[in-house]
Amino acid sequence: MPKYYGYVGRILRINLTKNQVKIQPIEKSLITRFLGGRGFNSKRIYDEIPKGVDPLSPQNKLMFATGPLVGTAFPLGARFNVTAKSPLTGILGDSNAGGHFAAEMKFAGCDQIILEGKSRNQVYISIEDQEIQTKDAEHLVGKDVYETTETIRKDLGDRKVQVATIGPAAENNVLYAGIFANLARPAARTGMGTVMASKNLKAVALKGTGSIKIADPRRFWKIVEETEEETYVHPQYWPRRVMGTTRILMLADKLGILPTRHFTSATFEHAAKVSGERLAREYNVKNRACFSCIVPCSRVYVIREGEYAGLCGEGPEYEALSSFTARVGNSDLSLALKAVDLANRLGLDAITTGECIAWAMELYEKGELTRKEADGLELRWGNGEAILTLIKKIACREGFGDLIADGVRRASEKLGKGKRIALHVKGLEIIQADPRGLKGYGLGYAIASRGADHLRSEPFIELSDDPEKGMEMFGIPEATLRLAHKGKGKLVRYFENWCAIVDSLEVCKNLAENMELLPFKRAAEIAEATTGFHFTEEAMFEIGERIINLERAYLVREGIRRNDDYLPARFLKEPIPDGNSKGAIFEIEPMLNEYYAERGWDSKTGIPKAEKLRKLNLAYIIEDLKENGIKMK
Amino acid sequence: MPKYYGYVGRILRINLTKNQVKIQPIEKSLITRFLGGRGFNSKRIYDEIPKGVDPLSPQNKLMFATGPLVGTAFPLGARFNVTAKSPLTGILGDSNAGGHFAAEMKFAGCDQIILEGKSRNQVYISIEDQEIQTKDAEHLVGKDVYETTETIRKDLGDRKVQVATIGPAAENNVLYAGIFANLARPAARTGMGTVMASKNLKAVALKGTGSIKIADPRRFWKIVEETEEETYVHPQYWPRRVMGTTRILMLADKLGILPTRHFTSATFEHAAKVSGERLAREYNVKNRACFSCIVPCSRVYVIREGEYAGLCGEGPEYEALSSFTARVGNSDLSLALKAVDLANRLGLDAITTGECIAWAMELYEKGELTRKEADGLELRWGNGEAILTLIKKIACREGFGDLIADGVRRASEKLGKGKRIALHVKGLEIIQADPRGLKGYGLGYAIASRGADHLRSEPFIELSDDPEKGMEMFGIPEATLRLAHKGKGKLVRYFENWCAIVDSLEVCKNLAENMELLPFKRAAEIAEATTGFHFTEEAMFEIGERIINLERAYLVREGIRRNDDYLPARFLKEPIPDGNSKGAIFEIEPMLNEYYAERGWDSKTGIPKAEKLRKLNLAYIIEDLKENGIKMK
Repeated sequence: MPKYYGYVGRILRINLTKNQVKIQPIEKSLITRFLGGRGFNSKRIYDEIPKGVDPLSPQNKLMFATGPLVGTAFPLGARFNVTAKSPLTGILGDSNAGGHFAAEMKFAGCDQIILEGKSRNQVYISIEDQEIQTKDAEHLVGKDVYETTETIRKDLGDRKVQVATIGPAAENNVLYAGIFANLARPAARTGMGTVMASKNLKAVALKGTGSIKIADPRRFWKIVEETEEETYVHPQYWPRRVMGTTRILMLADKLGILPTRHFTSATFEHAAKVSGERLAREYNVKNRACFSCIVPCSRVYVIREGEYAGLCGEGPEYEALSSFTARVGNSDLSLALKAVDLANRLGLDAITTGECIAWAMELYEKGELTRKEADGLELRWGNGEAILTLIKKIACREGFGDLIADGVRRASEKLGKGKRIALHVKGLEIIQADPRGLKGYGLGYAIASRGADHLRSEPFIELSDDPEKGMEMFGIPEATLRLAHKGKGKLVRYFENWCAIVDSLEVCKNLAENMELLPFKRAAEIAEATTGFHFTEEAMFEIGERIINLERAYLVREGIRRNDDYLPARFLKEPIPDGNSKGAIFEIEPMLNEYYAERGWDSKTGIPKAEKLRKLNLAYIIEDLKENGIKMK
Repeated sequence: MPKYYGYVGRILRINLTKNQVKIQPIEKSLITRFLGGRGFNSKRIYDEIPKGVDPLSPQNKLMFATGPLVGTAFPLGARFNVTAKSPLTGILGDSNAGGHFAAEMKFAGCDQIILEGKSRNQVYISIEDQEIQTKDAEHLVGKDVYETTETIRKDLGDRKVQVATIGPAAENNVLYAGIFANLARPAARTGMGTVMASKNLKAVALKGTGSIKIADPRRFWKIVEETEEETYVHPQYWPRRVMGTTRILMLADKLGILPTRHFTSATFEHAAKVSGERLAREYNVKNRACFSCIVPCSRVYVIREGEYAGLCGEGPEYEALSSFTARVGNSDLSLALKAVDLANRLGLDAITTGECIAWAMELYEKGELTRKEADGLELRWGNGEAILTLIKKIACREGFGDLIADGVRRASEKLGKGKRIALHVKGLEIIQADPRGLKGYGLGYAIASRGADHLRSEPFIELSDDPEKGMEMFGIPEATLRLAHKGKGKLVRYFENWCAIVDSLEVCKNLAENMELLPFKRAAEIAEATTGFHFTEEAMFEIGERIINLERAYLVREGIRRNDDYLPARFLKEPIPDGNSKGAIFEIEPMLNEYYAERGWDSKTGIPKAEKLRKLNLAYIIEDLKENGIKMK
């Protein structure tokens, strides 16, 4: 094996059909061109999963990968990506989580794990340094995330073993089941848990004694110290540390972008009652951090009174909190915590689950869904009992839950109703920020490579509403104004490239917020100090660009074109009815035009131009796309 | 005695020369026209202290007063004002503090305490409900604030007794000694402690069993609940709760308004090291709240290592922190804590102390002050030992400390050097925000009735830099832009009136920040619900206007005119050299013109016009000023 700094240098390729493990080296060119994590996985999915593979067949591959900063003392890097073709969307499936799993993966001796085929029996994988075993998992079938994690730790006789597992929802083939690490750290989106279940694989358990070598320790520590100092004095340090991302709920309400009652409103009259502030004040007991992080933004809560008194858990983050409060019209914070806990234990994606329930509620409130169709549930806004019942029904694929276990796109098609208000892009349900009042985010949803998504571009800078920043960064004052559509193509391209490298270094976006703590320049410096390979600011930008184009090429090969890059009609035609973004709609056409032009993609089809791919040293993709019958400019 | 809601209805008038106590009723018209606290005191100082009284003579009077919300469950009201003619400035002396003293004062049976004359011996006053005693204090002479408080509590056999005391600095006639309640809650500015010492009065100790009646409890509770809810979800709730006002240091550095090395710079390269964020992270152990407050923003710290290891205390607030860090070029946070602790124990105003030291350091660094003149101290920027030594020397009036114990105005006159860089207005030293980069604040310093001061207007809204707000509130977009001078007259008048009622209701400005939590309307509502007297939004504004005009009339009678309403030349002529306000100077003329016009004051002299005073039902003042030989328009 080659010896690298920052990387283990090893890929584990595990064939579950043959129960066979291959250990492969990482080539240097993969590192310098794709960095790690998401970059590694995206490259491989393009190369190894040909067009048309059934996501739930043994031909699909499930990949875990971490990045060069993971397992070091760099305070922002503790994440991993899980990638496969998505059963929910049929395109790139990809999700990302923090905690301690990623670092342990490197200590256990691998940068990437590729899971192929399908096991004959229910198994889980145990990796302990050189010892890689598939173990019987019959006794884990049907067990929830918490039970499975605890049982495996008991079986292996080590409470510190890091476990990434699926819950019953995945086993029941719910198309949006996630993979849960550290109990409550889900790689939740795009159904990666469903793919794992399709391989009869319940969990991956890790334990290792390795360590990561740093190329230039002196420089490394200098950057670590600088980053820590800036983190500590960032104006968001304390709010972030106390509330995590839940601090966003009140902010979203104030800006008038809080998805309320399935986006029929943008402010929630009970926002304060379900806010991160209230959660911190009345429920939280302590905070937890990811591996090596200096901001313990994850919160352990306990419900002190009422029907759910005694329930305790970790989280939730803003997305899950908002999903089971404003989005479904629920003002009972304890009930929301119960709902998130239930979704986590059953192994569901809280965002998609919330959308499915909210979608059904809107139909029901409008009289388009009958009580009988809804299994007798009174699907009124905020009906807590109905919310909890539906979560369980989805996870068991029972009755109406079976219908919405396929996600809103398929559910609306199957039901023959509510297609117009099924709020997804490319089959992935939209998150908790109204694109009409946050247009950079909205454009991000439209073009993200895994479907409606904020974590592929997340232009937090939009919230500053500062035309000087827009001018300085993009030469367009409007670029950073949240309600203006001009300049958003430039803005989103820039932040997409940034997110791609952040996901490949496997750094936390929440902390690196707004790039303040990890601009391209520092990313290059820390990557260089850690790995010893030469990286510049410009090279980093290009790596981001390369990953985005490669992912786009994968989508194009699967049939995605410009007309798939759209937001649902609600955002294009209905103005926001209330709050501080009142009257806003989403002007998609000029934004897409600008974006494609910035990207060097054909504006009619949304296909990357050959010239662009060639520039990025992705010439082989041109050939491959042509072989797949795709006409390129 | 009349019975009121919200008030005790009693004034204690204690003549220390005669050792005599009179109990007087509060007239209804005083309440409806001046509300309480600062309003009560300012009215009385105008009426009872004629022109020319020596501040340190028995003819001066020292007044404590609280407001109608104090002692109730309203979460923002826990403060008291101490007022007298100031020995430092020769004009209105006034300072304000929180903690538990104010509420106890009402429980002990008084809204206002007026201390007259001068005791023959060293005494302290003990008030326990109806029992009011002067007690021997010979054993307390020379004792510091902590020792005195502890000794009195021991003497009275009750650890819960509320004590407001002076330290040795006041006894040694330092002109800027404060009165310290609750150990570390100083009414520090304008030398109120010095006045107390001049009366041979060491402390006031309170204990009571009374309670405050509410006129309309249902309405009262509704407003309390609303205010609490809004407080809890305010974006500054957590930063405020965790860091108190120390969160401002990094913000000031970022804006380029952090007074660094005696305002020769507006950013401090070591800001992060001495920030509130670092304090919270590395020093703080728990938080404390004022009476009835729901935001425990006061912090108890301990120094864990280094030379001052083991030192623990409460605070500091931003002003004191900044005073002993950036302003004197000190980057050692532990040393700054030690300096604040020392200043507190000795009973000094940390702001003025910091200015005196910084002023001396600038002179020294420029070679204008010799080492000999400075008692052999090496007064280089950031010399920690010199800072601590000077604090002690000031408190003991020893050597160079004796010179600067009179404040920078007198010190520069006496020394015959450094007059141009003595940074004060009307003899009161300037606080920790550069007026060149925060022009509303700057105008506030120029015209505040107690000399350079931020707490008389505090237009926090300036920090929003939002022209829409400026347009909405004042019809002038620039009004709320911190670097624009237009509209500042309107802005400052508005916030001065607001501060006057807030100081009279005795509410915390830090919490009511930016008026968001206590706009004029809510102030009227809570005052009405509490007292049963009818108050409207407009009436509140007028009460503020009345207090400001009355205070101005007091200053005018003492000889203050437009040419006293100036900032030091540094701010008018030297542009800010660095940071985000680089190049800014303070355009005082147009701002003063606009301000006087808004106020209805004569723009040549700064004297309120007769018509204005008549409108405010202050006709008797016109007569009085005329009798004092002042020509009025």
